[in-house]
Amino acid sequence: MISSPANRRNSLNFSGGPGALPESVLQQVQESIIAVPEVGLSILGISHRSDWFAGVVAELESNIRSLMGLSSNYHVLFLQGGATQQFSMVPMTLLRGKEYAAEYLHTGYWTGKAIPEAQREGPVRMLWSGEDMGFTRLPKDDELDFSVDAPYLHYASNETVEGLQFHRVIGRDDVPRICDMSSDFLAGPGEFDRFSLIYAHAQKNIGPAGVTVVVVKDELLDGAPTDLPGFLDYRAQIKAHSIFNTPPVFAIYVILLVTRWLRDEIGGLDAMDRINTAKADMLYQALDRSCDFYQARAHRSDRSKMNVAFTLSSPELESQFLAAAAHAGMSGLAGHRSVGGIRASLYNGLTISAVETLVSFMEEFRARRR
Amino acid sequence: MISSPANRRNSLNFSGGPGALPESVLQQVQESIIAVPEVGLSILGISHRSDWFAGVVAELESNIRSLMGLSSNYHVLFLQGGATQQFSMVPMTLLRGKEYAAEYLHTGYWTGKAIPEAQREGPVRMLWSGEDMGFTRLPKDDELDFSVDAPYLHYASNETVEGLQFHRVIGRDDVPRICDMSSDFLAGPGEFDRFSLIYAHAQKNIGPAGVTVVVVKDELLDGAPTDLPGFLDYRAQIKAHSIFNTPPVFAIYVILLVTRWLRDEIGGLDAMDRINTAKADMLYQALDRSCDFYQARAHRSDRSKMNVAFTLSSPELESQFLAAAAHAGMSGLAGHRSVGGIRASLYNGLTISAVETLVSFMEEFRARRR
Repeated sequence: MISSPANRRNSLNFSGGPGALPESVLQQVQESIIAVPEVGLSILGISHRSDWFAGVVAELESNIRSLMGLSSNYHVLFLQGGATQQFSMVPMTLLRGKEYAAEYLHTGYWTGKAIPEAQREGPVRMLWSGEDMGFTRLPKDDELDFSVDAPYLHYASNETVEGLQFHRVIGRDDVPRICDMSSDFLAGPGEFDRFSLIYAHAQKNIGPAGVTVVVVKDELLDGAPTDLPGFLDYRAQIKAHSIFNTPPVFAIYVILLVTRWLRDEIGGLDAMDRINTAKADMLYQALDRSCDFYQARAHRSDRSKMNVAFTLSSPELESQFLAAAAHAGMSGLAGHRSVGGIRASLYNGLTISAVETLVSFMEEFRARRR
Repeated sequence: MISSPANRRNSLNFSGGPGALPESVLQQVQESIIAVPEVGLSILGISHRSDWFAGVVAELESNIRSLMGLSSNYHVLFLQGGATQQFSMVPMTLLRGKEYAAEYLHTGYWTGKAIPEAQREGPVRMLWSGEDMGFTRLPKDDELDFSVDAPYLHYASNETVEGLQFHRVIGRDDVPRICDMSSDFLAGPGEFDRFSLIYAHAQKNIGPAGVTVVVVKDELLDGAPTDLPGFLDYRAQIKAHSIFNTPPVFAIYVILLVTRWLRDEIGGLDAMDRINTAKADMLYQALDRSCDFYQARAHRSDRSKMNVAFTLSSPELESQFLAAAAHAGMSGLAGHRSVGGIRASLYNGLTISAVETLVSFMEEFRARRR
């Protein structure tokens, strides 16, 4: 282990993303910058065509299959372009030239970005929108009237900006479900085999910005267009085992280390969920105890375990809160620029003790200022 | 400086890419994995919306402008998807719906990948192909009949696989020149203001895989389509200062460190070219001295300073050469899978002493085996 100089204290990182990664992973990453032990070359200079890197991709794919419990009719891909590229690739593949509308849920900032990209490619039906209520809750089952004719249903399991998370799978089992899991991917177990396509950029729970994981069911791609540029073509990427062109080698290696950490140090997705639930419960309970001072954004039933968004009574008080938090060694707590307020992101890499530090700080701040 | 354990000897990295990066850069990168000194957070967990990262992008853009001597009517972008994405973005932007053909040169493996992507989008005229002669040379001026009507001319300044490099600018000044400089970007000075668009993925000379630099002249984009998805739209990317969506933060930071190294330790592109020329001269002279044993692929006038491709008398001897080189601590010397043989890539980060080691090894190997 390479320790930091004594005169440097690192901040606790509550950023909405890119987010905190586990310390033990960072130490392995640090070593790999000069030389990956088993290769003798910097991770930044290893060929993506090397046997070693083929092994990295194969092990990573296997780790993700195993953590998620995926059956063999799913492919696991590592692509570039972020969730944004998936906002386009999904409708390019499944909606172009279609008669019936794909169904989209507008539950917050990020699904709001996905919908116009789908509309470029074909008909879209907005099944439900939380915009009028300021994205403070998710739909109830009786508000959702799914159509059997839709080529697919698209929604996000977790809205990063507003801090809303589905705690159930929605939609019909006879219509393909497509889910943006960018901000809660590998954060807990799920009925992943009920989805036809899941995508998640790495920079919340599993790695650095620059790589996106796509899990896609083989039969979803029957009838996909054959005239897309290769880098936008899921089948071309499957055929090339994610090495259609030079992949982001470093970012993929970091994800591999994170999946090993999830398996070996944490003990899998159930264990990860217990930790994430404990972190979120601790923070929401602190908010609820002090609801005269801190107001949680999300309705109780739809609260996110990943992103805890709250407000104080005025923007001025929120600025004071952020400045005092930064002074106390906590960073990344400002809410997304589209909504303001405060947001504490509790991704996999953030420790329970970091949340304890935040809660103590919040109690002290309230005691001083209310 | 964090030194490697004494029992580990790192290989000299002659890989075609991702390639070697300078040691002093790797040491700074290593430190940043735990905490970027001026931020106190891991580079892998710093928000792309932070003031610090806005400063990184601004400084990097300024360094590239200054190194290349670009005037203010050029934009500098940092995108994902590699050169492959540029193979598509260029014709999507400049060829869709056009009457006259864009002109492409087929000088090797990589321009051979670009041409079919352009053909998806509009008419293409192959101006010259070296395929019949096994891509052993580039066209002479009197073999090129440029049309004034072409929307643009596309070529590669350096063919990585075959080791061919243009040592002059070609084309008409009244037709936009588009150049893939992926494998010789920032390796030496050039008349960059004669190009309308230059693209280069990072993983040869300037950084890790996962980011692509695009230098584009403002007026080239007049009349570009307005209906492209944002991540494929140069103007949307310009407007967003390369942060249209989450960019590859880490890879961009590494490029920044490389540009500082180019400026402060090397002394700019003229000085870099002197070093690269010395390395290439040393290796080509060694080949020419031993032409009974080693055969350079490229015609003398078109030899690349970046990728020195050569063959031995049989694939068996080449395998023995590669095994002996690996044993002597030199990696990445196998030729590209499409052509075989040997290839030594001499990117910016590779030292003169590494080339001296290679040349000594080659002389010994020849003395033993001929």
